[in-house]
Amino acid sequence: MTDLKPKTTAGAVDGPDVKHMKWWGWGVEGTAFHHEDKPAFAPFVKKMVGVDLGSDAITAAPAFDELDIPASRLSSEVASSLSLVVGEGNVVTGDLERVVHTYGKSIRDLIRIRGNIFPRVPDAVVYPATESEVAKIVAAAVEYDLVLIPFGGGSNIVGSLEPMPDEERMVVSLDMGRLDRVLDIDEDGRVARIQAGAQGPDIEEQLNAKGWTMGHFPDSFTHSTLGGWVATRSSGMQSDKFGDIADMTKGLRMVRPDGVVVIRAVPSASTGPSLREMILGSEGRLGVITEVTVQVHRIPEQREILAYLFPTWEAGLAAMQAIAESDANPSVTRVSNEIETEMSFATSKESKGVSALVMQGLQRFLKVKGWDLTKMCLSFIGYEGSEEHVSINQKLVAKIVKKHGGIGVGKGPGVLYDQKKFDTPYLRDFFLDHGGAADVSETSAPWSKLLPLYTEVYAAANRAFEKVGVQGLIMAHLSHSYHSGACLYFTFAFEHGDNALEQYDVVKKAIQDAFIQEGGTVSHHHGVGLEHAPWLGQDVSLPGLALMQGLLDSADPKRNFNPGKVTGK
Amino acid sequence: MTDLKPKTTAGAVDGPDVKHMKWWGWGVEGTAFHHEDKPAFAPFVKKMVGVDLGSDAITAAPAFDELDIPASRLSSEVASSLSLVVGEGNVVTGDLERVVHTYGKSIRDLIRIRGNIFPRVPDAVVYPATESEVAKIVAAAVEYDLVLIPFGGGSNIVGSLEPMPDEERMVVSLDMGRLDRVLDIDEDGRVARIQAGAQGPDIEEQLNAKGWTMGHFPDSFTHSTLGGWVATRSSGMQSDKFGDIADMTKGLRMVRPDGVVVIRAVPSASTGPSLREMILGSEGRLGVITEVTVQVHRIPEQREILAYLFPTWEAGLAAMQAIAESDANPSVTRVSNEIETEMSFATSKESKGVSALVMQGLQRFLKVKGWDLTKMCLSFIGYEGSEEHVSINQKLVAKIVKKHGGIGVGKGPGVLYDQKKFDTPYLRDFFLDHGGAADVSETSAPWSKLLPLYTEVYAAANRAFEKVGVQGLIMAHLSHSYHSGACLYFTFAFEHGDNALEQYDVVKKAIQDAFIQEGGTVSHHHGVGLEHAPWLGQDVSLPGLALMQGLLDSADPKRNFNPGKVTGK
Repeated sequence: MTDLKPKTTAGAVDGPDVKHMKWWGWGVEGTAFHHEDKPAFAPFVKKMVGVDLGSDAITAAPAFDELDIPASRLSSEVASSLSLVVGEGNVVTGDLERVVHTYGKSIRDLIRIRGNIFPRVPDAVVYPATESEVAKIVAAAVEYDLVLIPFGGGSNIVGSLEPMPDEERMVVSLDMGRLDRVLDIDEDGRVARIQAGAQGPDIEEQLNAKGWTMGHFPDSFTHSTLGGWVATRSSGMQSDKFGDIADMTKGLRMVRPDGVVVIRAVPSASTGPSLREMILGSEGRLGVITEVTVQVHRIPEQREILAYLFPTWEAGLAAMQAIAESDANPSVTRVSNEIETEMSFATSKESKGVSALVMQGLQRFLKVKGWDLTKMCLSFIGYEGSEEHVSINQKLVAKIVKKHGGIGVGKGPGVLYDQKKFDTPYLRDFFLDHGGAADVSETSAPWSKLLPLYTEVYAAANRAFEKVGVQGLIMAHLSHSYHSGACLYFTFAFEHGDNALEQYDVVKKAIQDAFIQEGGTVSHHHGVGLEHAPWLGQDVSLPGLALMQGLLDSADPKRNFNPGKVTGK
Repeated sequence: MTDLKPKTTAGAVDGPDVKHMKWWGWGVEGTAFHHEDKPAFAPFVKKMVGVDLGSDAITAAPAFDELDIPASRLSSEVASSLSLVVGEGNVVTGDLERVVHTYGKSIRDLIRIRGNIFPRVPDAVVYPATESEVAKIVAAAVEYDLVLIPFGGGSNIVGSLEPMPDEERMVVSLDMGRLDRVLDIDEDGRVARIQAGAQGPDIEEQLNAKGWTMGHFPDSFTHSTLGGWVATRSSGMQSDKFGDIADMTKGLRMVRPDGVVVIRAVPSASTGPSLREMILGSEGRLGVITEVTVQVHRIPEQREILAYLFPTWEAGLAAMQAIAESDANPSVTRVSNEIETEMSFATSKESKGVSALVMQGLQRFLKVKGWDLTKMCLSFIGYEGSEEHVSINQKLVAKIVKKHGGIGVGKGPGVLYDQKKFDTPYLRDFFLDHGGAADVSETSAPWSKLLPLYTEVYAAANRAFEKVGVQGLIMAHLSHSYHSGACLYFTFAFEHGDNALEQYDVVKKAIQDAFIQEGGTVSHHHGVGLEHAPWLGQDVSLPGLALMQGLLDSADPKRNFNPGKVTGK
């Protein structure tokens, strides 16, 4: 991550040897976004949201010891009982651990952390090392009427990890980080058994060493876990080839009070209402996922991401739609709208020498072709497979791109995209330092509804910015193409005031309302948690919500397992 | 269906203009299997199961008026109430209608029908024409404490349609046949809204007329409905390209007592435990599916099924596994074991003239190559897409086939397979006329487990045949390939005695036990019903079964909706 530079931060986390992100922001200690070698970035930010990055007015995160952390309410009886299960060192009640496990990394979370807002903090963090320890903790949760919140990498952005503010029972954050191994690769069967607490890089490293890959690369990849992916129905950047996590997940083990639910790893089954798909997306409400059997692929012979430019957003969308219907099988289809395209160029390092000349030449060429460069949209399309497959697919795509008025601009930008793809969240902390709030909302809809939905989201967001009284930015890209539709991913940002959370709520609500109104879903791959729960009834209908609530209530009558998440109840 | 010949049958069904199969067997009146032009068939049957097709001892289905049908228990109050909803002519209590709606078409069903075994018959068949009528019937079911069993085409083979024998409440079979329209094709979004009662041919006809196809072709295609496919998680023959019904189903409408569950049609969503996938496979236990939004495809430019021969079953399996891992994207991958291959040749018309010479030449060639022709396995691989796509894929597959010792034998057998693919069930009725019982069991497992599972199923079936004291036949094919595994489909047959049902149970149990023991699932695409319910706890684990039961109980506390199916409770 050469593009990021070190930043000093407060404190490190106690407890067992489990990796955690910074308590106050994204990623690892000592790494942060900077724009010193990106001359177009500060002007872009100034133009778009009015924030002056040159100003000295930095609002850094507070020092940890300035925070008011509610004391742990863990009773000594429960502490002893849990310690008997996992060992004393794996029941942690220190403030830093508990703060790290209070929130995920949404803008709402970051604002609350920086704003010293901690209505309820877990009373303990417990680190089991085995499924059998998880089973004993689950039993203890029922016995002592505890609230148990499974915790993976802590990258969640929909409020799935926080205790309900009015929770009066003891709350235990169950950190799965010690269950981090690839247990078995069935090379003949093309499935791997992996523990739920394994983080993205751990998984790929263990698989890659034997020539395999899962192919699941969500934005959060570097700090999220397999269990978290499954519990929130995550999607990775290469989902066009490898599928969403729901497609990859074949077998499962989930601990419940009455035993372990074991879903055998088979490619497809017609055994009633799908338990596999009830557990996928269950966000800890049905039990604790301990192990997942996923399909794995041989590392492709060749892997390339090519960049393309389209004269307009509409042309870019139409091209992605045509690719999804064609015989082509790319691994990534992504196109940014004109604002995100401008942002991409603004976060690139200054072109110098030959590349600057090439860039100037390209711009002249496109102008001659009649392009309005302010409308131009950048697209990345990925190819993975044999050399022949990659070549055939690039030709198929090239024809479609050309038909839609686009042009290929080669491998350079794709290599850069590939290197930087996991860095975006760092930018948000940097932006917050400068008084800016940014977050994302994503949806999916049939191809026919994407453009009207996009238009309405823009209108709604801009009305919201006006209502809030800020100069707001909203940008978008299409990713995750399917035969019958795609995901639209919106990023929005504004210079926040003292009432940042209320401002955020207005903008977020406007966007989610527009998703629902225009036939999209409340969330394509971030899950529901608390953040999207208010819209779930509109998304799946009230009788649908009632059916889901019936499942949750029957599975957890005493509400011990992450209560309140998904359905809001 | 030129290969089938007319057969006279008893009676036609009353009620509204809804297509039904024969009350005593598969398919339409006046069509039946014959083997007059298939000289190898009778010797094959004699050799394999000892049944003499030349014998005059035909056990035809009884005359309808010989049956003892329990009288309808429908109260006049309920009859009036239902008639008010759907009109008097659409509440039918005649014996023939009620018998047609008592069972599906499993061998257990056919034996019971022919054996005059009717412990419980629906008290009425009701034909709603709109979702709003369905809603009123669902309300009546709760109000009058009726049992409601949704009925599509009646092709079910796992006992999902029959009333529980000890059911004391009034039982209503809800025939969805009047809800048979393609309501809308969103050509831009590539999704179509289709009513649940539409049968396969109706759907394809309506879609094809506008240039589209669903691509879902289960064996039951000619007599099954969209709602039935969804309710049992069906898979079609071209699933390798088009996906299983679970992949095709995007949106849903299901009537429940508290309203209509509406799942909006989006390509993918992370909105909690998936309601879509709870409704898929629910076999009427959660409510009545009235409408499904499925993804649709433009009719491919080219469509071909090529035939291949492999020297052994192991080689055929290995080739399918290699194809599934490769960059090739066929629409069908199917290979029969040596016995099913022999059966295929035995049900072919006699080769004459040129084709006989070609066949003899081929056999000589293969013998020279060192093949043992008794081990030879026939395979069909389908290709759909642009001419270029079909050509590229045929070349990719050809390489893999060659590597595994197989050879291509061209389009001829594939054309024949394509024409005859929906005819197999007729053969079963013919066989039953001659004292033979035959049925199927199918599973799926990771590639690594298929061969051991296959071996154990054979051993178990043969032990069962011995126990029962019959000369049994079991044959198999692989179909429905996935990246991480495939479906194995077994057909078994024997000359039954007077205790046909007990004999069947012994054989069926042996096969299902072997599936479970060897890591397969209880059912890949036929559903659970009553037939597979005894194994569900072993398949999804007892805590999994309890979770599923919790969903069903919370959704249907008074057990009005097809009680007993799937979980056995």
